[in-house]
Amino acid sequence: MKLHTPLCDLLGTRLPIIQAPMAGGTTTPALVAAAAKAGALGSFGFAYTQPEAMQRDVEAVRALTDAPINLNFFVNAQPAPIAPEAQRGAIDAVAGYYQALGLPTPAPVRAPYAPDLNAQLAMAEDIRPAVLTFHLNDLPAEKLQRLHALGIKTGGSATCVAEALHLEALGVDFIIAQGGEAGGHRGTYLRDPYEAMTGTLALTRMIVRAVKIPVVAAGGIMDGAGIAAVLALGAQGAQLGTAFIPCTESGAPPIHKQSLLAARDDTTVITEKFTGKPARGLVNRYIREMKASDAPQLAFPAQGVLSGPLRATSGKAGNADYLAMWAGQAAPLSREMSAAQLVITLEHETLEALERLAALRR
Amino acid sequence: MKLHTPLCDLLGTRLPIIQAPMAGGTTTPALVAAAAKAGALGSFGFAYTQPEAMQRDVEAVRALTDAPINLNFFVNAQPAPIAPEAQRGAIDAVAGYYQALGLPTPAPVRAPYAPDLNAQLAMAEDIRPAVLTFHLNDLPAEKLQRLHALGIKTGGSATCVAEALHLEALGVDFIIAQGGEAGGHRGTYLRDPYEAMTGTLALTRMIVRAVKIPVVAAGGIMDGAGIAAVLALGAQGAQLGTAFIPCTESGAPPIHKQSLLAARDDTTVITEKFTGKPARGLVNRYIREMKASDAPQLAFPAQGVLSGPLRATSGKAGNADYLAMWAGQAAPLSREMSAAQLVITLEHETLEALERLAALRR
Repeated sequence: MKLHTPLCDLLGTRLPIIQAPMAGGTTTPALVAAAAKAGALGSFGFAYTQPEAMQRDVEAVRALTDAPINLNFFVNAQPAPIAPEAQRGAIDAVAGYYQALGLPTPAPVRAPYAPDLNAQLAMAEDIRPAVLTFHLNDLPAEKLQRLHALGIKTGGSATCVAEALHLEALGVDFIIAQGGEAGGHRGTYLRDPYEAMTGTLALTRMIVRAVKIPVVAAGGIMDGAGIAAVLALGAQGAQLGTAFIPCTESGAPPIHKQSLLAARDDTTVITEKFTGKPARGLVNRYIREMKASDAPQLAFPAQGVLSGPLRATSGKAGNADYLAMWAGQAAPLSREMSAAQLVITLEHETLEALERLAALRR
Repeated sequence: MKLHTPLCDLLGTRLPIIQAPMAGGTTTPALVAAAAKAGALGSFGFAYTQPEAMQRDVEAVRALTDAPINLNFFVNAQPAPIAPEAQRGAIDAVAGYYQALGLPTPAPVRAPYAPDLNAQLAMAEDIRPAVLTFHLNDLPAEKLQRLHALGIKTGGSATCVAEALHLEALGVDFIIAQGGEAGGHRGTYLRDPYEAMTGTLALTRMIVRAVKIPVVAAGGIMDGAGIAAVLALGAQGAQLGTAFIPCTESGAPPIHKQSLLAARDDTTVITEKFTGKPARGLVNRYIREMKASDAPQLAFPAQGVLSGPLRATSGKAGNADYLAMWAGQAAPLSREMSAAQLVITLEHETLEALERLAALRR
């Protein structure tokens, strides 16, 4: 018995499962390669990765497997120059945390705040991955056509029906329906992100009914039962991020992995305090205090540069207080295993769930 | 082919589908009877219904069918006496709307703000429905035992794992996992309701994994694909509210039905401005303006008494501006048909979805 949807043919994968791109060091070459070899679509979260590092990471995967992989990018306008008072307010808000971690008071943040998307896409064209996905905004139709002409399949994130219809019209090959359960950054760009927090079940079904291209569901899916559920909704695949964070090969700090494995209920919240854009993670001291004090923040992605040393130092010290522990709402279902083992487990569980469902008809 | 889960045996229904209780006139005897006759569990939303009216409504159903039905109640402490300044602030906030609708300025709200729960439960014991469910809080273990001894199956709402475990320990027969997608009042009582907005997919799976008793999923389920999805998650049944609102037999105002049928994307929001407790509905002028002005409100359920004439007048006038149009996030999937037709359609669609899923194994 094997699990198959038309999406598998589109992506060139054995399974309709995507190991989600997670920027900031989680999606190591070892993780991507292991997920890809096991039959899922391995994905790099390259949002903060410079072209040379992209090349190095992909070469590391290609030394291990020739299975299809996905490169993912953040599409976002660079913020306007930041006024000195805004810098001062944002720095003051985090200065105490810098001090608590033994770090010198941070200097004002300077542009560029993130790698140049055009340079990243030029490198992606050289790399020619099987799949390229993007998040936080759309890509121009010409760019999508160019990628398509190179044989690269493209997918974009939608958090509402309007975004899915827009992406379909632009010419993407598939839609990632990012439900409200999803960990990490909200991909909303045509609406107020706080008014586009539709749950995965509702969103997936609405988008499946609205578009003609394949839909991949994301948000709150941690096991085969969750994959079977989104297939029931008419999705052709499932994208799982949080489930892969505790994997042996993931580059997430050990304290992030341990916090996921220790979760017993949904303790995630949406915060803008780490990067300047709303993202879902396990609540911790930084998120709680920055919210309570209504602390000022820089625009995305500059706030991420400001919080970077806090996150890095906290992660290395095994301290959960200042780390961005991105997580979906079903984090309590996290399991500790290798990525290959997880992919195979997901496959078996999905087949089991489908068998269990078949028995409900009698 | 028929659809069956052990929950059907527990509730005595043909199908693992619950027509959700919806208080305030939507769940008419005609709706409950039609849903029950067609094989679902018909449910009365009796939150605001006095015992004599409960008896009358149930007799009206029993004249039409002897199928099992469910009575649902709100469990909530009466608020402390309201200070005159609080009354004044809340009245001032809505006085302009009263005027706009040609209503006299409202008088201060007087207790009791809602029917007496003990009197309602005493009447429920006389009625002896097959099922009794409750919302907004727990019921004491002794009450649950008493109902159980009368042969009444009980179910309570949980919006997080902790609430589900608590209800299981109290002795309910089944849990209703109320996902973030759900329309109407959030049932959260052990947490901050805004931190317990877990999506239906994530919540259902986490609760199924945490408890031993049957779980019914609620929130964002509008068709057979949605029902199949929650069955895949291990739920033994699905509770649908919004899907039944546009039904011919539903008592919702026509403008509420039309607004649901016209929805094209998720335009629901959570508001406390109608009743004093967070509830999900289609955004409208009242919700938007009361939020923007950060208008003061009375505690639940007193605010509901204050907004009552606005809602009633607006509904009768076919005006969507001041009506509480409770709706789940998948409202755009609303369809216009009779309740019997809807139940049969849901049954067929679910079987079709299960068949479609079986074909993914090859």
